[in-house]
Amino acid sequence: MTEVFPLHPEPDQYSFTFGGKEPLLTVPPGSVVELSTEDCYGGAVRSVDDLPSVVCKFPFLNPVTGPIAVDGAEPGDILAVHLAEVRPRRDWAVSSTFPHFGALTTTHTTAMLHDALEERVWMYELDVEAGTCRFSARNSDYVVDLPLDPFHGTIGVAPDAFERIVTVTPSFHGGNMDTPETRAGSTVYFPVFVDGAHLSLGDGHGRQGEGEVCGTAVEAAMATTIVVDVIKGSDPIATPRIEDDRFIMTTGSVKPLEDAFRLSQTELVRWTQSLTGMDALDAYQLVSQAGLSPAGNVVDTNYTMVAKLPKTVLHGASVYDDVHDRLRRTGEEHLRTR
Amino acid sequence: MTEVFPLHPEPDQYSFTFGGKEPLLTVPPGSVVELSTEDCYGGAVRSVDDLPSVVCKFPFLNPVTGPIAVDGAEPGDILAVHLAEVRPRRDWAVSSTFPHFGALTTTHTTAMLHDALEERVWMYELDVEAGTCRFSARNSDYVVDLPLDPFHGTIGVAPDAFERIVTVTPSFHGGNMDTPETRAGSTVYFPVFVDGAHLSLGDGHGRQGEGEVCGTAVEAAMATTIVVDVIKGSDPIATPRIEDDRFIMTTGSVKPLEDAFRLSQTELVRWTQSLTGMDALDAYQLVSQAGLSPAGNVVDTNYTMVAKLPKTVLHGASVYDDVHDRLRRTGEEHLRTR
Amino acid sequence: MTEVFPLHPEPDQYSFTFGGKEPLLTVPPGSVVELSTEDCYGGAVRSVDDLPSVVCKFPFLNPVTGPIAVDGAEPGDILAVHLAEVRPRRDWAVSSTFPHFGALTTTHTTAMLHDALEERVWMYELDVEAGTCRFSARNSDYVVDLPLDPFHGTIGVAPDAFERIVTVTPSFHGGNMDTPETRAGSTVYFPVFVDGAHLSLGDGHGRQGEGEVCGTAVEAAMATTIVVDVIKGSDPIATPRIEDDRFIMTTGSVKPLEDAFRLSQTELVRWTQSLTGMDALDAYQLVSQAGLSPAGNVVDTNYTMVAKLPKTVLHGASVYDDVHDRLRRTGEEHLRTR
Amino acid sequence: MTEVFPLHPEPDQYSFTFGGKEPLLTVPPGSVVELSTEDCYGGAVRSVDDLPSVVCKFPFLNPVTGPIAVDGAEPGDILAVHLAEVRPRRDWAVSSTFPHFGALTTTHTTAMLHDALEERVWMYELDVEAGTCRFSARNSDYVVDLPLDPFHGTIGVAPDAFERIVTVTPSFHGGNMDTPETRAGSTVYFPVFVDGAHLSLGDGHGRQGEGEVCGTAVEAAMATTIVVDVIKGSDPIATPRIEDDRFIMTTGSVKPLEDAFRLSQTELVRWTQSLTGMDALDAYQLVSQAGLSPAGNVVDTNYTMVAKLPKTVLHGASVYDDVHDRLRRTGEEHLRTR
Repeated sequence: MTEVFPLHPEPDQYSFTFGGKEPLLTVPPGSVVELSTEDCYGGAVRSVDDLPSVVCKFPFLNPVTGPIAVDGAEPGDILAVHLAEVRPRRDWAVSSTFPHFGALTTTHTTAMLHDALEERVWMYELDVEAGTCRFSARNSDYVVDLPLDPFHGTIGVAPDAFERIVTVTPSFHGGNMDTPETRAGSTVYFPVFVDGAHLSLGDGHGRQGEGEVCGTAVEAAMATTIVVDVIKGSDPIATPRIEDDRFIMTTGSVKPLEDAFRLSQTELVRWTQSLTGMDALDAYQLVSQAGLSPAGNVVDTNYTMVAKLPKTVLHGASVYDDVHDRLRRTGEEHLRTR
Repeated sequence: MTEVFPLHPEPDQYSFTFGGKEPLLTVPPGSVVELSTEDCYGGAVRSVDDLPSVVCKFPFLNPVTGPIAVDGAEPGDILAVHLAEVRPRRDWAVSSTFPHFGALTTTHTTAMLHDALEERVWMYELDVEAGTCRFSARNSDYVVDLPLDPFHGTIGVAPDAFERIVTVTPSFHGGNMDTPETRAGSTVYFPVFVDGAHLSLGDGHGRQGEGEVCGTAVEAAMATTIVVDVIKGSDPIATPRIEDDRFIMTTGSVKPLEDAFRLSQTELVRWTQSLTGMDALDAYQLVSQAGLSPAGNVVDTNYTMVAKLPKTVLHGASVYDDVHDRLRRTGEEHLRTR
Repeated sequence: MTEVFPLHPEPDQYSFTFGGKEPLLTVPPGSVVELSTEDCYGGAVRSVDDLPSVVCKFPFLNPVTGPIAVDGAEPGDILAVHLAEVRPRRDWAVSSTFPHFGALTTTHTTAMLHDALEERVWMYELDVEAGTCRFSARNSDYVVDLPLDPFHGTIGVAPDAFERIVTVTPSFHGGNMDTPETRAGSTVYFPVFVDGAHLSLGDGHGRQGEGEVCGTAVEAAMATTIVVDVIKGSDPIATPRIEDDRFIMTTGSVKPLEDAFRLSQTELVRWTQSLTGMDALDAYQLVSQAGLSPAGNVVDTNYTMVAKLPKTVLHGASVYDDVHDRLRRTGEEHLRTR
Repeated sequence: MTEVFPLHPEPDQYSFTFGGKEPLLTVPPGSVVELSTEDCYGGAVRSVDDLPSVVCKFPFLNPVTGPIAVDGAEPGDILAVHLAEVRPRRDWAVSSTFPHFGALTTTHTTAMLHDALEERVWMYELDVEAGTCRFSARNSDYVVDLPLDPFHGTIGVAPDAFERIVTVTPSFHGGNMDTPETRAGSTVYFPVFVDGAHLSLGDGHGRQGEGEVCGTAVEAAMATTIVVDVIKGSDPIATPRIEDDRFIMTTGSVKPLEDAFRLSQTELVRWTQSLTGMDALDAYQLVSQAGLSPAGNVVDTNYTMVAKLPKTVLHGASVYDDVHDRLRRTGEEHLRTR
């Protein structure tokens, strides 16, 4: 019998780091958690006149819900997190530029002598039933409906001992990877660094282009259902991996961008090697011809690249004893019956 | 009445640069050209025992077919090249590692103290009717059929006056971009730098993963049909653009990889701006939420990123007076009736 | 009357992060602190047979001495730390390669398919009186004396609220910058993020080449004398600055390396602007023609570039009310009279 | 008896590429050449009102004097070029910003949505006898004399067959490296790619900061005396090397900047290995502790890093049979007696 846990933080219960927080919730492996998350602005941007640099208070940006400790998870294990549902909690979402943030502007790290680009806010109307979010230009009457494709931009575990990593940073622990692949239907695998793993997530996106070019997505508060499990006895993984019904995926969240590419690809070659029994060079060749390489984010304190391989080339190899299928079924059954 | 021109170079007629060669062929705008290309090894690698470093002679690598001069193309114009058909000419193709080349190895530019990775050749069996290319591992009996998805890794025009750019380099003139998006069904737009534009293409790939991680694709000699046209009076473009039935796309071929990303995205924002009438920041926002950002290559002398926007968000805006539709129809009619 | 404080941590008192620790010592501005630091291996590598990967226990790497809280330092202030003396505590020092660490090898972030380079340890004989450290090759009888030039590779303050940054990372708070410019005779200026600033330092280097190519320097335990002060009412600084008798210097510790360059140069332009009254473009021009740009480190989790401007071009402009001269005199007097 | 050759091009004799030009002059090894070069603006910027974007005509930028063919130089050889004298030909020089060029601005490759920074020209008064160049701010009355330190920003040989590389690009053939180390007193070693090597040089700089941050130096027309020689039978070199009385130096001119660093350092490790007989790891260690790593340029189409090792650590090892000493003496004698 699957246990179901709710997790709906009070405003002062959100976290702003991975690491350094006591768990809000502790659950056994195999549990379902129904949780709510706030948007990356902490819900403070509610109209086009709410400039983030005015209404948000640094460093209280990008709140996450958690940590959730999972019983029995130990350093060296893998935490599996299946996203069963990611559903916007409001009928609106918001995006913005932000001074010195984004891929096509001087930033605090790509420092230049230019003045910042204009700070501007866009409100999106969400229609969950129709599956759309409506973009409206600010300086003209251009309006277009985009498909809803909700996911969590930020999802990760506590990093190695000592560290506390702010939630705007993606790294080896996951965090603010901002890849659309962490959507409902995906199972995310994290390396476990501390007892209990300490999962947190937030930064819901109604949708996002690959690369998150302007620095923010269609930022939305979410009602999310996950199923968690612990994988023991497998080779440790260096960075988060993702699986859905069609692809296995690896991530690399470092700078520069070519290193994010290299890291994600090396991980995919290693994974392919272990799933097919091929040697490293044969796996390198197969990944080179069959893989996909979308950008996750090219705006955060680390950049994220994703490497994807279609499961069709794996001849039905079992990934972590089919935990993805198992968690997906648990999630589906829970959603059907709640 | 569409004119049709054949172009089947003799072995000594291939080019190894963009720029600096007399045209092999001069055609009027609107023409169809049926041409053949050799693979990037010059056809010299024909078995797993033909190591490229032995059988290929530097710098005679990556031969291209051309240049094709297009009447009336002048600097500042745009050359439109529709790929009507890209069909492998043999029932086999080949891939390899190459010492000091590839994304997951030390190279001549990412110089390190490691010895080179092993040089290894893979032969692929092509079945054009079935639409597959068969991968066979070298050090195990792993075999898998991958979908054929033929395209030209190298396609470009003569660069600015004075320069001669070797065919292994992608840059503002196109060249060795190695993006699967230059497949049959796509129209590629090039900035024109010299009278006649001087189009060349080669480096056929039976298929390729995004990023071309190991440095080479499923390398194949091709029989290719293109339709060319000249666009006058439009804003000049900085780098090659691509259009197919579903997407408009821009490319950036520079280093580092984040600059390739920035360049492709800036071009896409500018193009979106001109197609929708929005200002730069509104276009930036739309691209950020609706765009795709696959890697082209992360192995060549410049890296290539591609930025894609689905046409659905453009409300039917006409791209270059619908030249893509027109050239596609010309190509389809030609293929039907030849 | 200058107050003098000793700080000689017990083995279990070293820190491994910036941030998150209670001060070991609290001192008023203007104080002298005499302190001792352990080497980056925690003193565990004592012969060529002590491989770091065997004798060191991750994450107990790169211990620092501190934090030292300075009374009255508040967020937005600048902490000035004058290095009066940096003196090796032993007659030997040690360097090594380390698997997957260094500029000329695949690493955990520049991930590739190569095996790691050999792990090798070099012992250096130090002669403080002669001012030399003796390098002895391991695989031949090559021996050469290099000039001693002791400095602290790691020196920084607590970062912004929430964060705990491991001591191997350099960033906006300073940390593991690994630039030889933080030697005796230099004054280092840090942005203050938390009350008391919370200064820590360690990672003494008997000497180091610019870039720290192999990943480690001539690692040495140090006896160090510093003088600290708090600067109030100045424009906040983004990253650590350094001043010695001849140069003003700025640092940038981010990735990629061109961003470290950009950040250090932007800071130097801004500082030059404020010291000369010129506008940004005039300062940009002067820095462009008169500045030096050595690499700090190109091996750590962030890279560090240093930008230097000779004071001769500043026409005697007073830097922070000549705090460097004042602290240097305090230090000299203390050393003379202790 | 040393032969002396003059080379003073007519305005229409300057070159704008490396490669693809017939020699202006052919000389035997050991010859002295007295030559004149124009500044990077082709002499067209003569007052603060001469904006480069108006008075210069792309691609006629950065003219070089040459090619000079050296008898007997063959691919695989090394061309040695000793700079005996580099003397400004006028009592003024000029610098400028240039739209979309420089390290602290959006550029054509680091493409962003910012408008270009202001284009501004600075005139410098040169006093060759006093050894100064006078900087005068444009928007204030700040004036300062900087030391003259004349060198050639652009010096290189013809690249590999087929290619023509524009003179604004540095690469494996040298070219626009923009490092102050190519000053009078230095000997520069180039890989030879074509018969005769085909040396060209220009882009004289009255002085320049490391990194050439704003994109241009104190640009000056030069009267230069060089001594050339051919080295046969040595190991081929990958990129230009430099030697002066105190240092051996290597260069790396690629992107990204960390690859320029890696390339220069790998070359320095290899050179140190061959000069000392140590193995690669021991040489890596020595370079790591004794080397210097200044930026050359971080603004051109490739970035240049320089790696320097003091000759004192080489125990008097003979570099290319002391060709530097020999050419320096030849140059000194020539200058004394002309």
